[in-house]
Amino acid sequence: MDKNMKAHVKITLKKGVLDPQGKAIHQALGSLGFDGIDQVRQGKYIEIDLAETDESKARAAIEKMCEKLLANMVIENYAIELEQT
Amino acid sequence: MDKNMKAHVKITLKKGVLDPQGKAIHQALGSLGFDGIDQVRQGKYIEIDLAETDESKARAAIEKMCEKLLANMVIENYAIELEQT
Repeated sequence: MDKNMKAHVKITLKKGVLDPQGKAIHQALGSLGFDGIDQVRQGKYIEIDLAETDESKARAAIEKMCEKLLANMVIENYAIELEQT
Repeated sequence: MDKNMKAHVKITLKKGVLDPQGKAIHQALGSLGFDGIDQVRQGKYIEIDLAETDESKARAAIEKMCEKLLANMVIENYAIELEQT
């Protein structure tokens, strides 16, 4: 089989952590006339193409990557979605 | 009804657009010993809480926000997911 995995990783700030970038977007949207926005939070989105066919191995590898490099576990959470490509 | 919408917006670079940040992550993962990675692409992830109950109106509003402010349509794509909160 010649299948690979694509991982979609969302990294978001934990609840209660200040998000000045999100606030700036909120204000900019307000000044453009967009009303009715309660809150904006900005995070990161990372796509990783992996040469790995086993879903649980791929997930374990991506979790390690998140914890070692991609996310700051003190203030951020991560969510992983895997897709066969 | 007292329901609101939460929009999850992913903003990604279009195919073919250079992604130096993704390359840097790829190299950093390599130097941490993670093998078998073909490509890393970094994008943005934005959550917007909207005081809007109608899904199609919410989607139209978020699309306008993406095109006017959140995404650079020359080099970026956006994808919107809506969720009742």
